Formats: sequence, structure tokens, C-alpha cells
Amino acid sequence: MHLTLDRQSPTPLVQQLTNQLQTWIEHQRLRPGTRLPSIRTLARDQAISASCVIEAYDRLVASGWLEARHGTGFFVAERKPGLAQQDQPVWGEAGDGTWRQFREGHDNLLKLGCGWLPSNWRADTDLAHAIRQVSRGNPQDLFDYCPPLGLASLRQHIYKRLVQLGINAGPERILTTHGASHALDLLVRALLNPGDTVLVENPGYYNLYNLLRQHQVHMLPVPRTQTGPDLQVLERLLAEHRPRCLFINSLYQNPTGTSMSPQVAYRLLELAREHGLRIIEDDIYADFQDGPATRLATLDSAQQVIYMASFSKTLSSSLRVGYVVADAPLLARLAELKMVSGIGTSRFVEQVVGQMLANGSYRKSVQRLRVRLAQHMAKLLGQLEQYGWQVFCEPYGGMFVWARVPGRDFASLERLAVEHGVLLTPGSAFDYQGASSEWLRINVAYGQDHRAQAFLQHAGRPPSA
Amino acid sequence: MHLTLDRQSPTPLVQQLTNQLQTWIEHQRLRPGTRLPSIRTLARDQAISASCVIEAYDRLVASGWLEARHGTGFFVAERKPGLAQQDQPVWGEAGDGTWRQFREGHDNLLKLGCGWLPSNWRADTDLAHAIRQVSRGNPQDLFDYCPPLGLASLRQHIYKRLVQLGINAGPERILTTHGASHALDLLVRALLNPGDTVLVENPGYYNLYNLLRQHQVHMLPVPRTQTGPDLQVLERLLAEHRPRCLFINSLYQNPTGTSMSPQVAYRLLELAREHGLRIIEDDIYADFQDGPATRLATLDSAQQVIYMASFSKTLSSSLRVGYVVADAPLLARLAELKMVSGIGTSRFVEQVVGQMLANGSYRKSVQRLRVRLAQHMAKLLGQLEQYGWQVFCEPYGGMFVWARVPGRDFASLERLAVEHGVLLTPGSAFDYQGASSEWLRINVAYGQDHRAQAFLQHAGRPPSA
Repeated sequence: MHLTLDRQSPTPLVQQLTNQLQTWIEHQRLRPGTRLPSIRTLARDQAISASCVIEAYDRLVASGWLEARHGTGFFVAERKPGLAQQDQPVWGEAGDGTWRQFREGHDNLLKLGCGWLPSNWRADTDLAHAIRQVSRGNPQDLFDYCPPLGLASLRQHIYKRLVQLGINAGPERILTTHGASHALDLLVRALLNPGDTVLVENPGYYNLYNLLRQHQVHMLPVPRTQTGPDLQVLERLLAEHRPRCLFINSLYQNPTGTSMSPQVAYRLLELAREHGLRIIEDDIYADFQDGPATRLATLDSAQQVIYMASFSKTLSSSLRVGYVVADAPLLARLAELKMVSGIGTSRFVEQVVGQMLANGSYRKSVQRLRVRLAQHMAKLLGQLEQYGWQVFCEPYGGMFVWARVPGRDFASLERLAVEHGVLLTPGSAFDYQGASSEWLRINVAYGQDHRAQAFLQHAGRPPSA
Repeated sequence: MHLTLDRQSPTPLVQQLTNQLQTWIEHQRLRPGTRLPSIRTLARDQAISASCVIEAYDRLVASGWLEARHGTGFFVAERKPGLAQQDQPVWGEAGDGTWRQFREGHDNLLKLGCGWLPSNWRADTDLAHAIRQVSRGNPQDLFDYCPPLGLASLRQHIYKRLVQLGINAGPERILTTHGASHALDLLVRALLNPGDTVLVENPGYYNLYNLLRQHQVHMLPVPRTQTGPDLQVLERLLAEHRPRCLFINSLYQNPTGTSMSPQVAYRLLELAREHGLRIIEDDIYADFQDGPATRLATLDSAQQVIYMASFSKTLSSSLRVGYVVADAPLLARLAELKMVSGIGTSRFVEQVVGQMLANGSYRKSVQRLRVRLAQHMAKLLGQLEQYGWQVFCEPYGGMFVWARVPGRDFASLERLAVEHGVLLTPGSAFDYQGASSEWLRINVAYGQDHRAQAFLQHAGRPPSA
């Protein structure tokens, strides 16, 4: 393959590569099914970054020129009608790598930075069993719309869980959603207007940043420390900018893995009361925790805290079930928005989740996950130290470690990662402005894979070196 | 029960009734499980409308005071924590009856105006079978996130269906959604800004009106005639207001059941080209039709038309699967919005629908529905004439007849309906401003139920009378 990439051109390299690959496929009249060079090979041959090749292949998959096949690479696609357009924008063009993990076609790379557990860790027999039970049960669950607040039986089970966590809210204050991001979207639509200002944790959840930008809401970053948000910065921002609300993970924060200390939590609630700040506590990693933990919603006596969580991390990302707990006026507004923007959630999947909460299989499977994650976390933390990585904080639990090799930038880490068959999520994705970062989010569940081990070991700088 | 309702009070009757019922439950220390009077009895005893009782019971269910039990009525609920608030707003307070059909607690009434088929008409064994197959298949379908555009195999099947309809768009131009209302929400978010002006059909789909209002978009109503939108009005509005887009059902329009004629369709597309108008064609009833039909997306050569549909009406409202077909730049934007506002759709349910498209069970079940609907439609049209109802148009197919008894207002029809155990959806729900109307949307699938028959017969004014 002969490609001429012009590094002086105003056209970005990714676009040049995409166009030339497309032209090459056309001119060579390559037959459907022809295999393209691997990411590593093409990057090396053209002396470009692996990111650039990944992005170009992604665009060609999205526009229908290439097909990604499970675990084996990228192939010329069957030609489809309506594919003649050149330069059509494809999904995720803005491409900061944020969404890369969700795209098809990188099944052959180990997604070391992704935000979910491997399929083979999941409670597959239990979930499949619950699905089959519901399929044989009440036909309404197969066919009917879900009530606005969500399925009553599921909300009842969620209520029982809230009681265990010490959160004082009856089933009438619980609204189900298509996962946590949908809950965030409903909250942003209900609470904020374009031009409003809010506080976000930095680093933090990239899809929250995207969502707030989408709504033209200004973000003020509060640095995340080992024990929660930096209260000095927060207090100053409260006084200067009077932000509407704060979005926060108390437990196992994404991406740093840190958990809030009781001292920070109390002071944060005090500040919230003083300044009339609403807090949106995203407790999506809640069920990875056992025993006492610090949650704002538990400590909250003044109803400053809106609580939300989901089953995507612990049970299934495929089903899309989450929920939000709010005061009655806000909940009524959220329910209205939920109906207007999609006529509710899926009754079938809510019944399936309810079933697993009812028969105890969810509880048992989460217990197994906790033990397994704790073992992987302990092991990886030891290895990272040994390999010469620095961690931001040793998490109590959860999935994520925030780590770096001081002095090694993302480009150099990524080159090495692709050589070892590993796909990283850039640290810049977790910065509210996309600023580049040496830090990486590492999902401990993938840390013992031989590719991850080889990459981590090669990338590290052991003290002895 | 002694209630004192004050018709001169500034507090609406519904609110008075809600408050007094709540006080009564408290003061009488009624035990959980105590049954409340039926809607009909309470309405008669207090000389108030059935609507008023329905609304009050709904509010008390939503706020946790009452429980609705399948088919048997309303009962005092178990007391829940956090229920002490008086006057808390509950979901759907604005209450024009629009959402009544989605609420829990009217299972004992026949929903003659609802927008879905009875459960026992549905392909339950086929759907349950597909669900069980997927539960035994690829574990990715149980656990993983769905790619941004939706599951590739489902999009491939939808593409084949589009080919049959003569719509020229490859799989790369199809995006899956949580049903049609979610598709509308994504489109409104991508295409419109607050203050923009659009054309809507009147009467039309109430949730579209709600959605546009939610987005602060101005609506200009185009009357729906027997053959499509009123082109004279439309042409005038185009010239005067330069609206951004038009939302339309070509086939079996909701609520009138009318279908667009080819002449109207051609002229509409001409006007759209001249005025740079985008058309959003909501073809949600498409699969109820067999043989030739007039669709804008089929005739469209200038890419003015954005096409969308769903499986909610024909297969299952519980699963929440729909899709939108758009040009590449718009589709990329929609995919981004879909990810930002909820990280995609459910891979599991998309695999289930794909399975039913693949094995032919969807096609067969829709064929059965078509025959059954056609029989029910023919029978009901004959009966309506005989009973002295007037229909707006005799639909070729679909679920809906738009009918009235000249001179009979909604309040009088509703009183009669509740007496016969029938719940109506008010015609005002289908007016873009909620204007009261004599017209009713009747779902023919429920028309042969003895309660519907008794109501229709009593309400009608036969020519002989």
C-alpha cells in the first residue's frame, strides 16, 4: 500500500489517512473481505501514531467502507448503496478518544482503560435464568409500556436497598432510567439552563462533561483529592460564582478510585446548606462496596442531595437500568421529562432486574464480584509499584486505579500499548477541558491479562532502572 | 364518606378532592388494604365528573396514599416513610388526561382510546422464544454496551425492510433508538433551538406537542384532511413563517387514521424543496400496511425527508426499540447525542428484535395483526354508523378511527364511558393547544369488547332517534 501523508497540510493526518485508504480501496478494486494491515503494522510503516490509525479505521467502519470482525481485524466491507459520499462526517468526529472504547472493531485489543467488567466475570447463568423466567411470566412484561416512575416492584426493591444504605426515601421518590447517563441527562434538563454554572470534579466522568457542554452549561472544576473534592477551591468557587449544583462520586470516584472521607462529606454538606447548593451524588459504584462507607445522601438531612445509581456496572450494561432519588416536586418533573422524551423505560428489563433483586442472585453475584475485584486490585497495586508506576491513591475497592509513569506522555504509552495489543483510554478524556495528561485510568479487572502485564512492565520505570 | 367540595373556591376541585380523601384516610385511620369507592360511585355521590375522581385517585396513587390493584380498584396503601408532605406535586399534575392511559390503577377500565394493541393480540410465544434464544446466545448481548449507531445485525435487517419500502438508505444511515419518541427527542435536540418555528399536524400526536413545548419551539398547526395535510394552509405558513421543519405521519395518521394521497405527497415534497423545509416522517404504523402506499421517504430524491419508525406498535412497547434514517452528517450528530444522553440503547433487546426479523416470526405476526385489525376495523365502522356516530374518514387500515357524536361534548361522553367501565382519551389531547373537542380516538382493537359496545351504542344518536 502506498500512502503519501503530508505533515505540513492543513488537513489533519487522520483525515488524510481516511481519504487515502478509501481511495486505495476503490482504485485497487479490493474485494469485500480483503483484510487490511493491523493497526500496529500500518502505524509503523507510515510512521504515524496508533491513535491516528485507530481513528481512521473507526471512521471507515462507521461510513461503511470497512467491517470489523470479532478478534481478527479490519476488512473491506460489502458495498452498500448510498456510500458514495466522500468526506462525510462520521460519528464521534470530534474524536478525543473518549468514545473509542464503545466502537466496534477493537475486539482484538484489550480495553485496559474501559469502564466495565469483562463478560466472563458476570453472572451470566443467573441473568439468563431471570430473563427466561420473565419471558414465561406475565405477558404485560413482554408487551406493555412501563409506568412513568418505573416498574413498581423494581422500585420497591430499590427502596429496600436504600434503607440498607441509610437513605431515607420511599418508593414514591424513586424514578427508574435507562442507566445513570440517562438519569444525568434528565437532571440536567430539569435543573439547568444554558449559561448556568455548575461544579464538576476534575478529573471526572467524561460523559458528564460532554452532557454539560451539550447543554451549554459552564463547568467550574474542583480538583479531586485522595479524600474527596478540594474544599478550599470549592469554597472559593461557591463564593465567587454561585454555581447551581455539584456533580460528584462519593465512592470509588471515576477515574481516580478515591472515596470521600467523613470529614470532607460533613463539611461539604455544611457548605451546600450555606450556599443553597444542590448536590448530585452519582453512586454508580455503590454495590462494589460492603460495610460502612461515606455517602452524602445518607448524611443529608436538608434534602440538598439528589442520589442516583445504576445496575450497569455490577449486573449488565446491555439492559440499561438505573435510577434517581429526588424530592417529590423534582421527581414529578423528571417523570414528565422521561415520558416526553421517550415514553418511559423498558418494562421487560426492569422486571428482569427486579427478579434478580428479589431472588437474591444479584446480591450473591455482587458479593463474588467484590471479592474478585479486591483480589485483582491488591495484586495489581503490588505489580504497579514493582514495575515503577505511580498511583494517585490506593483505592479501597471498585474497578479503577489512576496511575502514571512520571515523565511518560500518553503518545508514548499508547504506542507501547498497541504494540502489546492493548487499547488505552487517554487521561485527557477525564479532564473537563480535555487537557493532556500523563495519568491513565486502569481497570483492574483486565490487569492480569498477559498483554496488560507485558505493557505495564515495559512502560514502567522501576526504581532500579 | 363525607366530603365538602366548594365549587366557588379558587382551589381546583381535583385538588380539594385529593386533599379531602387524604385527610379522610388519616382521620379514619383506615387500615392498609381498605377499599375505596369505585370511580363511578364517588363521582355520582359527590356530583362531580369521573375525570375529577380519576385524577384525584391517580394523584393519591402517585404520592403513595393509595394502591391500585389489578382489575379490582383502589385501596389504602401500606404507609411508607417520607409520605407526610401535603400538597406535594405528583407526576402529570398539569393533567389534561394525556398521560392517564399510562398510569397504574385503571386496569379495570377498558382503555378504548389507548395507543397500543391488547396483550393477547401479540406474538407472545414468538417473542418469548426469541428472548430465550438470545439469553442462551452470545454473552455480549447480555452484558455489553451497544455500539453508538445500534446493533449492526438489527440495522442490517432494518435496511432490508427499507429496501422493500423503496427507501434508498444503507445501514450506515440507520440509528436505533429507545422507540419513536426517543427518536423525536434526539431529532428535536439536534435540529431545533428554543424560539424556532415548526409545522405540526393538527390533530396530531400529543407527545410530539409536549416535546416541542418542552424545547420551547413554536408550533404552527396544519389541519389534517382526509388525504394529508391541508396544502393551502401549509403553503401560506411556509411563506409567512419560514418554519424549520414539518412533523408528519403519512400513513394511518394518529389520531385520524387518514393516509396521504400521492398527489398531496408530490406537492408537499415540491413545496419542501422550494422552501428548504425538512420533513420528519414518523412511519410508526408502517408495518400495519401491506401493498402499495404513499411514503414521503420513498418519493424523496432531494434528501428533504428524515424517516423514523418503531417496533412498539407491532411487536412490543415494553422493549423500546425504534430507529431513525437520516443523512450522514445528521446521523453522526444524533449518534453523539444518543451517547451523551444515555450511552446508547439496550443491546439485549435489539438482539431480540433482530432475531425476530431474521427468523420471519415478526413478518408473520404482523401479517396476522393486519388481518385481525382489518376485520375489527370493518366491523366497528359498520357499528359506528349504525349507532349514530360520525367518522372523520374510513381508514384503509391501522388501529385508529376518529369519531364523534355531533353535539355530544367530551364531559358527557366520559360520564357515560365510566358508567360502562370504559376509559376514554380526550380529543383535546390531540389538539396542539389542548382545545376541547367532540372527536374521540377509538382503538378498533378494543371495539368489540362488550363494554365498548354498550358505551358506543348508548352514546350514539341513531338517525332514527
